[in-house]
Amino acid sequence: MSTLPTLTTPLSVGVLGFGGLGQAAARVLAPKRDMRLVAAADGKGYIYDPAGLDADTCISAYAKTGTLGTIETGGVLSHQSIQDLIEAAPQVQGYFLALPNLPNTFMASVAKQFIASGWKGVLVDAMKRTSAVEQMIELRDDLAKAGITYMTGCGATPGLLTAAAALAAQSYAEIHSVKITFGVGIANWEAYRATIREDIAHMPGYDVDRARAMSDAEVAALLDTTNGLISLENMEHADDIMLELAGIVDRDRVTVGGVVDTRNAQKPLSTNVQVTGRTFEGKTSTHTFTLGDETSMAANVCGPAFGYLKAGIELHQRGIYGLFTAAEIMPKFVR
Amino acid sequence: MSTLPTLTTPLSVGVLGFGGLGQAAARVLAPKRDMRLVAAADGKGYIYDPAGLDADTCISAYAKTGTLGTIETGGVLSHQSIQDLIEAAPQVQGYFLALPNLPNTFMASVAKQFIASGWKGVLVDAMKRTSAVEQMIELRDDLAKAGITYMTGCGATPGLLTAAAALAAQSYAEIHSVKITFGVGIANWEAYRATIREDIAHMPGYDVDRARAMSDAEVAALLDTTNGLISLENMEHADDIMLELAGIVDRDRVTVGGVVDTRNAQKPLSTNVQVTGRTFEGKTSTHTFTLGDETSMAANVCGPAFGYLKAGIELHQRGIYGLFTAAEIMPKFVR
Repeated sequence: MSTLPTLTTPLSVGVLGFGGLGQAAARVLAPKRDMRLVAAADGKGYIYDPAGLDADTCISAYAKTGTLGTIETGGVLSHQSIQDLIEAAPQVQGYFLALPNLPNTFMASVAKQFIASGWKGVLVDAMKRTSAVEQMIELRDDLAKAGITYMTGCGATPGLLTAAAALAAQSYAEIHSVKITFGVGIANWEAYRATIREDIAHMPGYDVDRARAMSDAEVAALLDTTNGLISLENMEHADDIMLELAGIVDRDRVTVGGVVDTRNAQKPLSTNVQVTGRTFEGKTSTHTFTLGDETSMAANVCGPAFGYLKAGIELHQRGIYGLFTAAEIMPKFVR
Repeated sequence: MSTLPTLTTPLSVGVLGFGGLGQAAARVLAPKRDMRLVAAADGKGYIYDPAGLDADTCISAYAKTGTLGTIETGGVLSHQSIQDLIEAAPQVQGYFLALPNLPNTFMASVAKQFIASGWKGVLVDAMKRTSAVEQMIELRDDLAKAGITYMTGCGATPGLLTAAAALAAQSYAEIHSVKITFGVGIANWEAYRATIREDIAHMPGYDVDRARAMSDAEVAALLDTTNGLISLENMEHADDIMLELAGIVDRDRVTVGGVVDTRNAQKPLSTNVQVTGRTFEGKTSTHTFTLGDETSMAANVCGPAFGYLKAGIELHQRGIYGLFTAAEIMPKFVR
């Protein structure tokens, strides 16, 4: 068996969900040679073109009509858009699930659709919550049997920062703590409606249902009381279960918190992960991985997501199916 | 195929070379449940015991007699110790090659011994020089045919920091530069004679042959002129070819430099890697991964080396052979 997998590029990939994250994903892929966006779906329709989709056309159509299904060449209106797209486009090798994290069972229900469809390929999510990733873990055997390689928790955090923590742990005999602190700056929160509600759901006194039921006006009113800042501590973030699964540290030693500024593109603090442990000589120390402030949430989520998608396609082509997390696999650079 | 490889632990592993690095490797493994040190070799002998070696016994014997071959239970004196150990211990699943990097062809010659022997398993090196890793790349097909999974450049740098750079690259559409700066503090350089000569070989006016030919007195005299500091810039370090092979960045955009203090255990600066790139939105930014000052060179080399050895054994058990670098594979945590 040869060393380096020889993928036939460009890889044909799709994006499910076309909100802020899905649109950013389309823009990330636009200049790539290794990967071509050929399929995308939203709640009301989908588009498929094996020759490749034009990001601007898709984003413009979605902005005007609320769905990709209205695009003349290749667009199809559908209320079961994911199901229909899977059937229409069996050649797609992998999908980035840029879907809302809410309801908490949504991503697992989409995975079940793929399992039931008979499609074989790679799925990547950028889910945040521990309980959502736990649902995927339960599907592990079903995914493996279906010939699907599923990469879970592969965005920024969990994702890039979880992987950095897994790497940093290598210097230590024992890990005392993994502390993830993120800063997010969004000039215009209305572009990330779902994401902001997910953040609000982590605030004291809120939960997923309450946050999801809020109108835009209610969200705006809440943000007025905090000067646009959402401060979060001890969030339910799947970094914990992912690092525990990888055998690195018990989940209760992994903490995630941060500050989201919904009125400023500049980050309120530099996103970082600190891994503290004891070396084999008995010294206690801390490795730190810090993201540059100029990198956006979209860049830090979509880049890793497609990097894990590429790594997943290599695994899939070797016949390795089932469930993997960002803490186990090195993402591959998509050129 | 199931998701998570089920390795039968403890894995039986060996260490080739028993200088400072090999002895540290024995100490790193001592408390592990996942991995058991069962074999070790130096230039004059080897020891093999499937029940496990005692690190203190090995280190003490080596200090007293200059070889592990003098240990009563299991020690064998031999002038072809590696060859003899391979034959005596076919059950060993993987070796960390904690051998001197010099001469520059030495590691490749050891790999060829393994290829010729018929042994199948995993080899990990922590080599530094680009030209040494290039020799391993030439052996790629031979390694694959022999059923050997070889992990090259899997120490600290290259290794941990190369992997961190590969991860950090995920946020960017294009990488402008990868800059690795290390600080090493060694209270007593005589414990790392080979490593220090490798560093001196990078100094202006020195090369591998000249550094290697220096007596301890000559090394001491040189260090007297620099107050014990070895400052290095634009070093030939394999991080460059490893990141290029992974498709992340051209090798000429990867620079490695640092300062070694041979008279102080405290690091003269914090070892770090900075990855600068352009995001898909056109922003330029820098991610930084910084090692805690209290982590020693030995911790940052041996930890990753065994993490990659564990990952390599998982690959090997899936029938994946050949050559891999630290930039391609996520090391696994050894408990």
